[in-house]
Amino acid sequence: MTALQRPADPEADPRVKAVFDDIRATRRSDFVNNLWRWLAFDPALLERTWAEVKQVMATPSALDPLTKEMIYIAVSAANACSYCVHSHTAAARAKGMSDAMHAELLAIIALAGKTNQLANALQVPVDPEFERAGGPV
Amino acid sequence: MTALQRPADPEADPRVKAVFDDIRATRRSDFVNNLWRWLAFDPALLERTWAEVKQVMATPSALDPLTKEMIYIAVSAANACSYCVHSHTAAARAKGMSDAMHAELLAIIALAGKTNQLANALQVPVDPEFERAGGPV
Amino acid sequence: MTALQRPADPEADPRVKAVFDDIRATRRSDFVNNLWRWLAFDPALLERTWAEVKQVMATPSALDPLTKEMIYIAVSAANACSYCVHSHTAAARAKGMSDAMHAELLAIIALAGKTNQLANALQVPVDPEFERAGGPV
Amino acid sequence: MTALQRPADPEADPRVKAVFDDIRATRRSDFVNNLWRWLAFDPALLERTWAEVKQVMATPSALDPLTKEMIYIAVSAANACSYCVHSHTAAARAKGMSDAMHAELLAIIALAGKTNQLANALQVPVDPEFERAGGPV
Amino acid sequence: MTALQRPADPEADPRVKAVFDDIRATRRSDFVNNLWRWLAFDPALLERTWAEVKQVMATPSALDPLTKEMIYIAVSAANACSYCVHSHTAAARAKGMSDAMHAELLAIIALAGKTNQLANALQVPVDPEFERAGGPV
Amino acid sequence: MTALQRPADPEADPRVKAVFDDIRATRRSDFVNNLWRWLAFDPALLERTWAEVKQVMATPSALDPLTKEMIYIAVSAANACSYCVHSHTAAARAKGMSDAMHAELLAIIALAGKTNQLANALQVPVDPEFERAGGPV
Repeated sequence: MTALQRPADPEADPRVKAVFDDIRATRRSDFVNNLWRWLAFDPALLERTWAEVKQVMATPSALDPLTKEMIYIAVSAANACSYCVHSHTAAARAKGMSDAMHAELLAIIALAGKTNQLANALQVPVDPEFERAGGPV
Repeated sequence: MTALQRPADPEADPRVKAVFDDIRATRRSDFVNNLWRWLAFDPALLERTWAEVKQVMATPSALDPLTKEMIYIAVSAANACSYCVHSHTAAARAKGMSDAMHAELLAIIALAGKTNQLANALQVPVDPEFERAGGPV
Repeated sequence: MTALQRPADPEADPRVKAVFDDIRATRRSDFVNNLWRWLAFDPALLERTWAEVKQVMATPSALDPLTKEMIYIAVSAANACSYCVHSHTAAARAKGMSDAMHAELLAIIALAGKTNQLANALQVPVDPEFERAGGPV
Repeated sequence: MTALQRPADPEADPRVKAVFDDIRATRRSDFVNNLWRWLAFDPALLERTWAEVKQVMATPSALDPLTKEMIYIAVSAANACSYCVHSHTAAARAKGMSDAMHAELLAIIALAGKTNQLANALQVPVDPEFERAGGPV
Repeated sequence: MTALQRPADPEADPRVKAVFDDIRATRRSDFVNNLWRWLAFDPALLERTWAEVKQVMATPSALDPLTKEMIYIAVSAANACSYCVHSHTAAARAKGMSDAMHAELLAIIALAGKTNQLANALQVPVDPEFERAGGPV
Repeated sequence: MTALQRPADPEADPRVKAVFDDIRATRRSDFVNNLWRWLAFDPALLERTWAEVKQVMATPSALDPLTKEMIYIAVSAANACSYCVHSHTAAARAKGMSDAMHAELLAIIALAGKTNQLANALQVPVDPEFERAGGPV
């Protein structure tokens, strides 16, 4: 089910077509996944969202592409976003996440989920040593 | 503030002392942070929690230690755990997270938080292509 | 799937029938959606929940009905409640939410989701200027 | 800090005074905690919220008072509500929660937090056996 | 849908078979639910997760088995874990949760969800009286 | 406390100064709140985040500025972001949110939080009538 009707022929709008073309070129694939097809109902929202995903996830940077995908999966699981867990697990697999790495990612997500709720249930005060994590001033 | 009174002299209990000693030895530091001091009110819970943290976070494995800490921070931010964000950001810094890496981690957490809520607000259906992410059967 | 079996003939119970009749009268529609059909397993819980929804959402007040629905959608997306996103998006549409308004609602939900996780990941301290928001003691 | 200024003299309003008097009588204590003092800025919201808390938490029912408080703490930890964790932990202690019970409650919250995020990260499909949990139709 | 392919013949791995056998023996049932079948892709993660579930949920302790399941459901609903809500509601029913108890559990989850978001929206400061909940230093 | 040290003299960096100047000009105020002062540690992240906030929240559009702020508060409360609740409640007050409107906003946040967790605890299936909310393909 869905809460919004996706446009029937999104690429009839040239702004949407330009984004879809860039998605295809960036990913070197003809596949445009549903999130973009749904966002096409508002070209401005589509453009801004893709521009940010492209910049953060598909531009060479300090973190390698697979690490980025694993961080994305971690947030998505914590936020209970079924769509994002599916799409970014597929992306992580495509970028080389092995079974062993996947198992470890799951173990960290599980452990963090556990201690997050434990610390929140205890309301443990933050140690002064953790203040000013790294750097001057 | 806190919802539980931490034990006044936790290491008077030999089970607690054994865990604290192992924390110090594993981390090569005299510092035992508050989460463990609070969990000391129940030695069995303390032992199990530390055993899992040690196994998942402090044992050489497929993912490098800094990547693990960044995944931990990502889950903790999504779960709004102030304590865990503080403690694992300090740990990531200690393991070499640079300002550039930190900025990128934050950008991914922010982007994932954004698209998670967008996909949940649209109730976008999962693409069939994302099913069976990785592997036979 | 569901975690509870809905009653087969809920309106056989006069308390349930009274609530369903009030839902139909209030909404001027014969449609009674699933949430109420499921809550019918406990007439007291059904009565209290409907009374609150009627009072907060279906009684003229300082906020107009469409604004209320958009606020409801925003909370439901953040809480990852698929059912509530669907039902309140339908309600907002019925109350006049245009595509442009829907796109803007989604953009705010997305942006807030983003900065929420950013502020939680940074643990930014609250500015003293934001304290006492609105008025003297 | 707070996002709302609490009323300076809430009991000057007879509707607020009536609620505060009922809180004191129900709890057999002079103490009225901050949540009620803040909600006093809107007597209708205060009345409705207290009426529900009194009905659900302070009326004899199928579940005993301590079990109710522990369930309340569990939800509050998962929702990262610092205030509610503090207030309901104090209430649970007052109703007889021992250290052993508290440790066990924490262990269940931690375990559930862990498997919740694990199941959400795996997107495990629900077993057909779990459908229609309990009862005919 | 799922984000991970479950192993086709999990019990071909003796470590997995040992865990499945222990699940069957502990529960006195031939049924092994999907969570364990999915976790079988990594025997170490499967072993650790089951060991913890067995210890916390299936070992006689200060809290009775039904209370434990209700606490588990409460956390799972707050975390929007569909799988865990289904599985633990089935478990609670099997352990004797009546319709009346289920309705009351739902009422507490609903009320806590309500006041959690209310307290977080008001940013009510914690009363000093709630500090040090239970016992001396 | 904080997990990141804010830069001591952020406006020494011309990119940061340009953003701060635009914040002041857009808001017609000398006040630059902490979120921006913390993000200044990475000028690119600061620029992108402010550009989005300016576009979504401070540009005339289909929704009026106060409605936007109330939606922002709703998401922030659900996500347990203390900072964002404080800052956007102050903003909503500055844009004309009365006590009556604030009380109503809180009542909707509370009610949505309640029914979200209720629907998630029941796993109510979405009514087919809610599919395709708003219009043809």
